[in-house]
Amino acid sequence: MEKIILGIDPGTNMMGYGVIRVSGKKAEALALGVIDLRKFSDHYLKLGHIFERITGIIDSYLPDEMAIEAPFFGKNVQSMLKLGRAQGVAMAAAIQRQVPITEYAPLKIKMAITGNGAASKEQVADMLRRMLHLDKEEVGRFLDATDALAAAYCHFLQMGRPETDKKYSSWKDFVNKNKDRQSSSPIGKKSPDS
Amino acid sequence: MEKIILGIDPGTNMMGYGVIRVSGKKAEALALGVIDLRKFSDHYLKLGHIFERITGIIDSYLPDEMAIEAPFFGKNVQSMLKLGRAQGVAMAAAIQRQVPITEYAPLKIKMAITGNGAASKEQVADMLRRMLHLDKEEVGRFLDATDALAAAYCHFLQMGRPETDKKYSSWKDFVNKNKDRQSSSPIGKKSPDS
Repeated sequence: MEKIILGIDPGTNMMGYGVIRVSGKKAEALALGVIDLRKFSDHYLKLGHIFERITGIIDSYLPDEMAIEAPFFGKNVQSMLKLGRAQGVAMAAAIQRQVPITEYAPLKIKMAITGNGAASKEQVADMLRRMLHLDKEEVGRFLDATDALAAAYCHFLQMGRPETDKKYSSWKDFVNKNKDRQSSSPIGKKSPDS
Repeated sequence: MEKIILGIDPGTNMMGYGVIRVSGKKAEALALGVIDLRKFSDHYLKLGHIFERITGIIDSYLPDEMAIEAPFFGKNVQSMLKLGRAQGVAMAAAIQRQVPITEYAPLKIKMAITGNGAASKEQVADMLRRMLHLDKEEVGRFLDATDALAAAYCHFLQMGRPETDKKYSSWKDFVNKNKDRQSSSPIGKKSPDS
């Protein structure tokens, strides 16, 4: 079964995006780019531009899912409010098109791609370049977008294994280890360690 | 000239809204209500519900402008990120329908309505009830929505006087006092003291 995943790395100055197509165990990159928000001095024009561009990307590539890199800690409440707004507008673009959202903490993404939660941006980019057979030049040109592509690739690796940090030997084992489990929602599932 | 103003008091548990129609110096309330978000355990369903409801309200009342109550300080970065997302989704609903947004700090709204920046919720509600000739029962039932109505009414009071904290005796006086002024944007203007 084929799936298109849109990865987003939301920021208030640069918003990266990456689109991959996965088919079975294979993945290929379809798009990689950045939305430069520095030219907008007005906060609302910035948010409007994010909404328009993400909607445009969704309408061009028709992703089945969106994966978003979401830091949960920031310098101060002001910057978190601004980041929250930028994330909210990007999420609204997905919501209006009924694209389910999954968010991943930066550490989780680095870990999934390189096996090392403390990997550098360059290490993540280099690993992605090899896994997705990307052009060295292409990756270098859009280094801000590789985090977005990494989010999409991380989601691909997580697909079908929502409980990566829990291993079960059998269904009985699963039930025993999840006695306090009430219900699970397939939409908008948070990554386990976020 | 007639104008419809939608006021929003965004919260992550309850989101209040109020719609007023202004005509010259007169204002009347058209709608008042709350969007109860407590029933959604999933963060994305919550955001999706905000987007749908605000879009629905915009399509029902066709507001010319949106006024939003925006606190700029919060308890911690986590709650500010969540609030920012809720605000961002509500703003995206306005942005997609080309409704300009103006935000006001809570203190500014209380000051505009009651003349006292430290006024209680009840004092604000009581003043609005008298100015908009509202039913006592109606106001009591939607106390969570009166902050939203207050934001809309505050915007009405500010309309046409974007620089309320500056008084000028003449055009020359204005130019003299604004020598450092570069340009002003009519869209998404922040309230002066925010």
